[in-house]
Amino acid sequence: MIDGKNKRNNASEAFAQVRNDIDQVDSELVELIARRQALTGKVGTLKAELKLPLYVPSRESELIEKKRQLAEQKGISPDLVEDVIRRIMRDSYLSQNKTRSQVTQTQQRKVVVIGGKGQLGSLFVQLFGQSGYSVDIIDKDDWLQSEDLLQNAAIVMVAVPIRITRQVIEKLSQLDEQCLLVDITSIKESPLNAMLAIHKGPVVGLHPMFGPGIGHLAKQTIVVCHGRGKSQYNWFIEQLKNWGANLSFVDARQHDHLMSIVQVLRHFSTIAYGYHLKQENIDLDKVLELSSPIYRLELIMVGRLFAQDAELYSDIIFSDQKNIPMVKRFLQRMMDLLEMLETEDKQKFAELFAEISNWFGGHAEKFLAESNQLLAKASDVKK
Amino acid sequence: MIDGKNKRNNASEAFAQVRNDIDQVDSELVELIARRQALTGKVGTLKAELKLPLYVPSRESELIEKKRQLAEQKGISPDLVEDVIRRIMRDSYLSQNKTRSQVTQTQQRKVVVIGGKGQLGSLFVQLFGQSGYSVDIIDKDDWLQSEDLLQNAAIVMVAVPIRITRQVIEKLSQLDEQCLLVDITSIKESPLNAMLAIHKGPVVGLHPMFGPGIGHLAKQTIVVCHGRGKSQYNWFIEQLKNWGANLSFVDARQHDHLMSIVQVLRHFSTIAYGYHLKQENIDLDKVLELSSPIYRLELIMVGRLFAQDAELYSDIIFSDQKNIPMVKRFLQRMMDLLEMLETEDKQKFAELFAEISNWFGGHAEKFLAESNQLLAKASDVKK
Repeated sequence: MIDGKNKRNNASEAFAQVRNDIDQVDSELVELIARRQALTGKVGTLKAELKLPLYVPSRESELIEKKRQLAEQKGISPDLVEDVIRRIMRDSYLSQNKTRSQVTQTQQRKVVVIGGKGQLGSLFVQLFGQSGYSVDIIDKDDWLQSEDLLQNAAIVMVAVPIRITRQVIEKLSQLDEQCLLVDITSIKESPLNAMLAIHKGPVVGLHPMFGPGIGHLAKQTIVVCHGRGKSQYNWFIEQLKNWGANLSFVDARQHDHLMSIVQVLRHFSTIAYGYHLKQENIDLDKVLELSSPIYRLELIMVGRLFAQDAELYSDIIFSDQKNIPMVKRFLQRMMDLLEMLETEDKQKFAELFAEISNWFGGHAEKFLAESNQLLAKASDVKK
Repeated sequence: MIDGKNKRNNASEAFAQVRNDIDQVDSELVELIARRQALTGKVGTLKAELKLPLYVPSRESELIEKKRQLAEQKGISPDLVEDVIRRIMRDSYLSQNKTRSQVTQTQQRKVVVIGGKGQLGSLFVQLFGQSGYSVDIIDKDDWLQSEDLLQNAAIVMVAVPIRITRQVIEKLSQLDEQCLLVDITSIKESPLNAMLAIHKGPVVGLHPMFGPGIGHLAKQTIVVCHGRGKSQYNWFIEQLKNWGANLSFVDARQHDHLMSIVQVLRHFSTIAYGYHLKQENIDLDKVLELSSPIYRLELIMVGRLFAQDAELYSDIIFSDQKNIPMVKRFLQRMMDLLEMLETEDKQKFAELFAEISNWFGGHAEKFLAESNQLLAKASDVKK
């Protein structure tokens, strides 16, 4: 009995000691991260001096591969090491972006951002400014002075809400012929046509595929739809790459077709689901308490929408009457499924499921693996 | 000109030097993580010796708070430090769970898991085994011998697919009166009633709210629905807590009602969306190339479903005809929205959106913040 007690005391002491050791290791970890951040801050300045791009995928993957190998040698999980390094790197890009200031071309260019006080517009204003361009902003109230501001601009960027994009573009008939006209609207065909009609010079359409609040372009996807004068706007493409963006070139019509399904239909059905939750008046707190990480994720992806501006979504959903037949086809497919439910036709359901699996092919397995990784990360997020 | 070249050479050298330094820091980082993992391995053994639970929320939050403060002192982001430590801890729980072996009660208890070779069943077999219980498994083929196996069992756990749960339960009329009967089906009212009808002793229903492949219970939510004899099964509740589970107690009927919306309707509409993508025959690779992190996340959450067993989903969707009117109400709400689209009634849409936002209340903002954190993490995930 005394033996048992002694053994227990020894274990308690050992336990306290190990906890102290862990505490010590964690403090060293913080110091090490601080040292690394100081070093990557220097890299930011040097990259700017050497005119190197912010983000180089090959450098990043080599670095990670080496440390994965080291992890294996040390008998710890390579995935753990990769996750930790990637997380630290994410902050590095943000701080590097803040310290750098560079221009791709030597001469100073003049930029005008119409709607430059908006969420996405202001990011471009910041980036152009840091890179040494001279930037002017035209906002709702400055319209009267705009004719002067637009003269001698090397780029005019239209960064206004969708519903007034065409209207704003149609006023830009007086630009210099060398001036590059760019828009960043989330639909592409209609603004691109409007820009080509009003302006004789180089034209390109962008769709930045990320939300506001990112603060830098490293690794962010931007869709590029060609308008006119590729050789004349190539310097701007190089500038986007230099900021670290991942560019994806696509035809404006194809962009709009794919986006009608990925963007319009998703927003539409997410709003319908929020509406349903409200009408059924479910107990949200209770649901959250019971939710698995996957159900929690699905719920927060619905609820997040309603913390945002209704116009953001209605502009996209109402942008084109062509979306209506597509939404109707979706509803018809839901009714097909409902019929299987009503007739309890599990056989037909299983066949349909197999056909869809087949259509997804190898993507389904990859999506499962990727989402499992992400769901594991979700448990690390502070609620 | 020579000056400019020298300056550039100096910058190049400095750049190479800083990269070497970063490489060195990263190697130290790997060493430090390895040291920490060795220490938490010891914690696992000692916790088992001292009969302490695997996961203690207050210990975790204190530890993190201290290191957040240290991060601020060092001038780096506290969120970065918290994310890194949580990520390392996640692996610790897994390895601690592997090294521990303990029982809450001193006497050795006998456990039978019916369906113990299935994905979730085998996790419980592993946990019971590690904690010193004697575990028997009844699988599809052992049914003939089961009568013997069931004798003197302290717990019988039913871990079979939904569609045969009731059938399996109805054969369990010969259990000892002290035996605890438990199921882990994702619907609760029907199996609970079946268990109460066939067995006179203690009964409890569980719904583990996590996917297979987690490998431990730390921080995982398990829904508990009371059946009969709380005082007789309390030791088992303590055992679940000791394994680190986060228990949520709820009435079986309320569970099923909430799950019909969160689980049945989500699966239903996700399958419909997959069906739609297939019928529209969109170019998946192109869509992925163009997708923002948020659209990518939504797509992979749809596609992942089709890498899984169709029966898993049809069992849930077809489990109860009561789900049909609920799905119909959802479809009706989609049609209401579609009508606003057809009549271009932006005003009505805005009003509805505001009502839903209002209903979500403070949750919407919280969901936006949480999902933004998660989306930032998504960019760290290997594609």
